[in-house]
Amino acid sequence: MIEIHQALSMILERARPRAPERQGLDQALGRVLAEDVINDIDSPPYDKALMDGYAVVASDLRGGRGELMVVDEVAAGDIPCEPLQSGMATRIMTGAPVPRGADAIVVDECCRMDEAGGITTVRIDDRDVRPGQHILGRGRSVRRGETVLQIGRRLSAIDAGLLAEVGRTQVLVHASPRVAVLPTGTELVPACDVPGPGQIRNSNGPMLGALVSSAGGQPVDLGIARDTESELARQMNRGLHEDILILSGGVSAGDFDLVPHVLRDLGVEQVFHGVRLKPGRPLWFGVLPHAKGSRLVFGLPGNPVSGLVCFELFVRPAIAALAALPQVSRPMIAARLSDPFRHTGDRPTYFPVRLEGDRWEGDGDPVQARLLDWKGSADLRTLACADGLALFPAGRSEYALDETVQVMLLERGLFAH
Amino acid sequence: MIEIHQALSMILERARPRAPERQGLDQALGRVLAEDVINDIDSPPYDKALMDGYAVVASDLRGGRGELMVVDEVAAGDIPCEPLQSGMATRIMTGAPVPRGADAIVVDECCRMDEAGGITTVRIDDRDVRPGQHILGRGRSVRRGETVLQIGRRLSAIDAGLLAEVGRTQVLVHASPRVAVLPTGTELVPACDVPGPGQIRNSNGPMLGALVSSAGGQPVDLGIARDTESELARQMNRGLHEDILILSGGVSAGDFDLVPHVLRDLGVEQVFHGVRLKPGRPLWFGVLPHAKGSRLVFGLPGNPVSGLVCFELFVRPAIAALAALPQVSRPMIAARLSDPFRHTGDRPTYFPVRLEGDRWEGDGDPVQARLLDWKGSADLRTLACADGLALFPAGRSEYALDETVQVMLLERGLFAH
Repeated sequence: MIEIHQALSMILERARPRAPERQGLDQALGRVLAEDVINDIDSPPYDKALMDGYAVVASDLRGGRGELMVVDEVAAGDIPCEPLQSGMATRIMTGAPVPRGADAIVVDECCRMDEAGGITTVRIDDRDVRPGQHILGRGRSVRRGETVLQIGRRLSAIDAGLLAEVGRTQVLVHASPRVAVLPTGTELVPACDVPGPGQIRNSNGPMLGALVSSAGGQPVDLGIARDTESELARQMNRGLHEDILILSGGVSAGDFDLVPHVLRDLGVEQVFHGVRLKPGRPLWFGVLPHAKGSRLVFGLPGNPVSGLVCFELFVRPAIAALAALPQVSRPMIAARLSDPFRHTGDRPTYFPVRLEGDRWEGDGDPVQARLLDWKGSADLRTLACADGLALFPAGRSEYALDETVQVMLLERGLFAH
Repeated sequence: MIEIHQALSMILERARPRAPERQGLDQALGRVLAEDVINDIDSPPYDKALMDGYAVVASDLRGGRGELMVVDEVAAGDIPCEPLQSGMATRIMTGAPVPRGADAIVVDECCRMDEAGGITTVRIDDRDVRPGQHILGRGRSVRRGETVLQIGRRLSAIDAGLLAEVGRTQVLVHASPRVAVLPTGTELVPACDVPGPGQIRNSNGPMLGALVSSAGGQPVDLGIARDTESELARQMNRGLHEDILILSGGVSAGDFDLVPHVLRDLGVEQVFHGVRLKPGRPLWFGVLPHAKGSRLVFGLPGNPVSGLVCFELFVRPAIAALAALPQVSRPMIAARLSDPFRHTGDRPTYFPVRLEGDRWEGDGDPVQARLLDWKGSADLRTLACADGLALFPAGRSEYALDETVQVMLLERGLFAH
């Protein structure tokens, strides 16, 4: 058996980012850029007014005061007719182009307009008027030819605005990995069925599919495979067309645990089988060499909780790596134990906890971790109340009340904390 | 002008959760349950073996030792033929039903099978064998009729597994609010166009659409509206069919700022116009009474950064409230200033910052907030580098190096910290 960190390195060595694809902005959100994005024109493309008011020549206004003749009016979308000369002003709206010759905007609140004898004037009473005030000069936001977003960046909502500003409605990004999910077990029936004698519902398929989505992958539901060689081989074959194939069940040492055997027959090379970890020891991992990058195959234990732990520790980072995402694991936070904990056995153990207290308050106090009263690794209902999984390293058996431990946050913990 | 907290209360008072809809598990993920979910059958539906090994009668094995006759073999999906009697054992696989009469499983590692003269026996050498060991009794995970998930719960990936376990492939949830986005301004052209004289690209539409998605809403793109009453009225009318209408631009006090005027003509009742906030002061908010719950209308300032601040402070919480989500704001964290800051003006100010240091390490040290060198509220490019917005309350003008401030995390800050 290998250690957790060894297993993770062996997986990540084989998890190469997917080939980039050109995507529209909607699909590209949250994905990682596979090209530098260059600005095509100066932005803004003209000297732009940032306030409603009057465009003026700053040097006309000693001490911020003066009276000017109003010669034009420009709204956003208009083009100023004539250049502005000394002694003149142009009424201007936010977003409109500043007329040539003008070098400052005085805001409405400092202006009083007057019309007399067909002549419009504006009396200005401002503080000091600085050249450039309330104007965003052409190219001041981004110059033509500048790189605005670099390779490797994960695209945010603000980036979508920036991409639009520089005229990009399509970008090259690392696509979301496709992840086939195949629970195995002759006892399994679909969730919509009522189990007959000896049958139970397939809860792993929906859970793993949802976890794949939450990790940024595209789940591909392969249904359920019964424990026969021919059925396993047929369905695994379909799954091996995807970037990742996740199997659940059939990997411990029992007589009917056919999964590793059938995978080897299909040409999948075993990388490891078994990790020093509780729960999750029977984890199987292998690769199928392929022209477009190796297919990764995970055989997770069939117990839902063991499956979840293996997913969070090993599959989530693999999905992130295929998506070229920089952050590859769930966040770990420090928490104080609300209960003592006693280790049984010699494997690093992840135990479901509920977090109490507010991590966001920033008073430096770690939150409290309360051990959940779970009934073993098939107890999905208790696990659904967990905010995280507390890690108890191997080599120590007793943990006292109030000791600080590391907790890997689950979705619920991220929602709430 | 009203204060930020007053504006937020006025919005949330009018933001009622959307009517619940029945959704499949895929669509229901991340949404809030609008019903209690009751288990339909005992789960597991039979006494289930949790390990590969032998089903035995615990009292046969004094001190964990003994030799038993093997009478049957059950794999997952099988039904045991006969009840087990004292002196007998059944070979059993993980997930299989435990035969009647048996009350414990002894794992393979403690067993040695022997075949002689057509009779199969197993010699057991275990520690103490407890009744119930390695068996999950019928209904021990969830009893029939028990509530497994309660109204108001946001559905996680683990919940998807639990829902499948209790036979639910459809659940009643509060649907994702539909949010129409309509940037206004005669100067705007679509991102795919090259701006002509006096024109700029519409970056607000794509940014706001992406923000709506990140907040759990469904963006509805209405294109761009020019600054004429008839065009504004026509496009706003379309937007008023959705739960929320977000307008951008046309809400400050300029001559061509028609938005509030046209909205009132369409029957939208103004709730407030103007918030003591920088940037974002011109925010407009109103409601259109409607049989299925009021439509909420936000008029955001056209400057992208002002628009972003208003979105994060006011629109995101409104979307969350319509989705019945419990957490309504971006998280705030404490951070130490890497630069001094000088307030100009008397409004609470949000200023973009970059965070340095690792918030997850839990050593109690707040991260550092570095003020970004931005060029005013149209500078989307600098904003794209921001991890958060530092809040400088009104009433103080000088903030020193190393002072602690509150920072509202933006998407980038959540990705990385």
